[in-house]
Amino acid sequence: MLIIGAGPTGLFAVFEAGLLKLKCHLIDALPQPGGQCSEIYPKKPIYDIPAFPEILAGDLVDNLMEQIKPFEPGFTLGERAETIEKLEDGSFIVTTSEGTKHQAPVVVIAGGLGSFEPRKPPIPNIAKYENNGVSYMIREPEDFRDKRVVIAGGGDSALDWAIYLSEVASEVSLVHRRNEFRGALDSVEKVSELSKIGKINLITEAEVVGLKGDNKLESVVIRHGGSASEEEIKETDHFIPLFGLSPKLGPIANWGLEIEKNAIKVDNSYDYQTNIPGIYAIGDVNTYPGKLKLILCGFHEAAIMCQSAYQRIYPDKKYVMKYTTVSGVNGFDGSKKEAKREVVKSIN
Amino acid sequence: MLIIGAGPTGLFAVFEAGLLKLKCHLIDALPQPGGQCSEIYPKKPIYDIPAFPEILAGDLVDNLMEQIKPFEPGFTLGERAETIEKLEDGSFIVTTSEGTKHQAPVVVIAGGLGSFEPRKPPIPNIAKYENNGVSYMIREPEDFRDKRVVIAGGGDSALDWAIYLSEVASEVSLVHRRNEFRGALDSVEKVSELSKIGKINLITEAEVVGLKGDNKLESVVIRHGGSASEEEIKETDHFIPLFGLSPKLGPIANWGLEIEKNAIKVDNSYDYQTNIPGIYAIGDVNTYPGKLKLILCGFHEAAIMCQSAYQRIYPDKKYVMKYTTVSGVNGFDGSKKEAKREVVKSIN
Ligand SMILES: Cc1cc2nc3c(=O)[nH]c(=O)nc-3n(C[C@H](O)[C@H](O)[C@H](O)COP(=O)(O)OP(=O)(O)OC[C@H]3O[C@@H](n4cnc5c(N)ncnc54)[C@H](O)[C@@H]3O)c2cc1C
Ligand SMILES: Cc1cc2nc3c(=O)[nH]c(=O)nc-3n(C[C@H](O)[C@H](O)[C@H](O)COP(=O)(O)OP(=O)(O)OC[C@H]3O[C@@H](n4cnc5c(N)ncnc54)[C@H](O)[C@@H]3O)c2cc1C
Repeated sequence: MLIIGAGPTGLFAVFEAGLLKLKCHLIDALPQPGGQCSEIYPKKPIYDIPAFPEILAGDLVDNLMEQIKPFEPGFTLGERAETIEKLEDGSFIVTTSEGTKHQAPVVVIAGGLGSFEPRKPPIPNIAKYENNGVSYMIREPEDFRDKRVVIAGGGDSALDWAIYLSEVASEVSLVHRRNEFRGALDSVEKVSELSKIGKINLITEAEVVGLKGDNKLESVVIRHGGSASEEEIKETDHFIPLFGLSPKLGPIANWGLEIEKNAIKVDNSYDYQTNIPGIYAIGDVNTYPGKLKLILCGFHEAAIMCQSAYQRIYPDKKYVMKYTTVSGVNGFDGSKKEAKREVVKSIN
Repeated sequence: MLIIGAGPTGLFAVFEAGLLKLKCHLIDALPQPGGQCSEIYPKKPIYDIPAFPEILAGDLVDNLMEQIKPFEPGFTLGERAETIEKLEDGSFIVTTSEGTKHQAPVVVIAGGLGSFEPRKPPIPNIAKYENNGVSYMIREPEDFRDKRVVIAGGGDSALDWAIYLSEVASEVSLVHRRNEFRGALDSVEKVSELSKIGKINLITEAEVVGLKGDNKLESVVIRHGGSASEEEIKETDHFIPLFGLSPKLGPIANWGLEIEKNAIKVDNSYDYQTNIPGIYAIGDVNTYPGKLKLILCGFHEAAIMCQSAYQRIYPDKKYVMKYTTVSGVNGFDGSKKEAKREVVKSIN
């Protein structure tokens, strides 16, 4: 199965599929798995995951990653699923923003609120420098080794990447409109420290308002204190605006699926299939009467969906559900988890 | 809300109801909460609870009990829900086997495979002594203080209660057909030890085949080695056959609900309501196309059901769902769980 979206729903679908001996590959636009939990609130507690009176969103993702490990899912991260094509044999080919193609008999859209797209600063010619000096997210920190980097933003990502890249880049500047940072206390303090010893060049109450360079980015224009007269031109190899990512349903909206309230309509009375047979939609990305956008609902939808996908892939097999407690979990990696057998012991 | 069945599904329904500020009372035929997880396999691991790569069924129940604690559910344990009556105002009265009555505007049946009923040994006049010397489960161990007790069975319950009562009763005999016990290793060894020091009177390759006494139980007839000639009469105050409990849908089958395959039909396309408005059925006890009898499915059904129950109870209020991460959890016990607020710190 090809799963679009590696949020909690997509991840748990790998587990349910694995129990049915179906192998999965996941595509996600973000550079890491976990969806909203990893991108928006990894350090915040969730209270309504069943049997966890409290769990950090990031730990939930870690636990799911551990749970699906025996089923060895494939991951294509940092690429957005763009187009889908149905072949004569009923299978699908999905092509990503980077041109990667995946073929599978079943496609599961677990795309949440959509693929996370960066909030871009309103600099007129910014598009010209995308992938040419401007990056909205960091996939591979080594790309910045010994380069001059200007980061913009005042939240956790801006702080954390400024700290991280201060060890990698030849020069790191952090530009933020205000003097207050909105992030974890440690990170704010660490940045303050690194600024004092000259490892981060901290430029507050300032904004990047222009980009210059012929074929690639060569410098940024920084405006101080909101007054147009005080502008500084700073030479740099990279500009990394980190103003958060916001999810957009994006290209999936054009796949011929029935869309309602920015979500994909599914048959919740049976198997969470969309109007295109063989394409399912589970988790936050789907809608049906009474839908709740909760993590625990995505888990149930994943389990039910897998049964139907199994029937589609193996129309002639009859699957008899077995409890994991009774049958254990057989990983594709050769691992086996099993309950201890009952002890029968004679007395005396 | 009145919830019949305190298995994992009924327990989690208390949590979801609590988020909506609905108060719950649970009835269960078993003396302890947890349903099948507690009664059948508390020491066995489950592998398909989302975000738990492995959890013992008993720990799952403990976690759920902790999660719902702030919502202070009421419990009526060891009583079976027998009859239901609908009042003019649309509310219901449920009466238990002990005559306890509960009234509520919404009834949620989370009865699993049914109420657990003891497997009774085939002794002709056994019914005469029920509640009069014969007990099939132990609700209050103190009832046996300084009494003579004969336990029958070869599984964990028989072993565990023999060990426990050896400190309470004046005399404990454990009768089992074979010389092998099917139970946790420690328990088998402990019984063997207690037998050696005379604290448990171990009678193996034997069976209780008769009961004697005028108004109450006075003695049991024990047959040795399967031969009718070797019979022993043993005086006792109590006979406790512990041959396991098996679930039976029981009286709920006669409440006018639509029953299919020994389960209650519900509207899974909307709110898991039964054919009687105001009565919902969630977890193993319900059925619908594609139903999976899994714990994680019961959790989802509980969440969806609560939204509909809320609308029934407060037809004029509009409930806007909030994430627990954002709004926290406000217990009826005055407790409040909340995520830490974001830090905004000025630099320098
Ligand atoms: C602050 C906050 C607090 C929350 N608190 C709670 C809570 O207490 N309890 C609760 O149950 N829920 C809570 N939620 C909601 C919860 O996070 C979501 O229900 C959950 O993340 C949905 O999981 P999902 O896997 O369906 O989608 P998501 O987590 O949104 O993941 C979807 C993934 O799909 C990817 N994707 C989408 N389209 C494409 C594409 N075309 N190509 C490639 N990738 C794509 C996205 O990049 C994303 O990573 C909260 C959400 C937020 C923001
Ligand atoms: C050996 C074994 C292994 C399992 N392994 C797994 C697994 O790996 N994964 C998984 O998801 N599931 C597993 N299951 C199934 C899982 O235990 C059930 O899905 C789950 O217990 C259902 O929860 P429930 O709350 O709906 O019902 P139950 O746990 O059955 O609880 C229902 C409760 O309702 C009570 N009740 C019923 N009728 C009445 C009445 N009239 N009055 C009073 N009380 C009543 C019963 O006494 C019972 O306590 C397993 C089951 C068994 C037996």
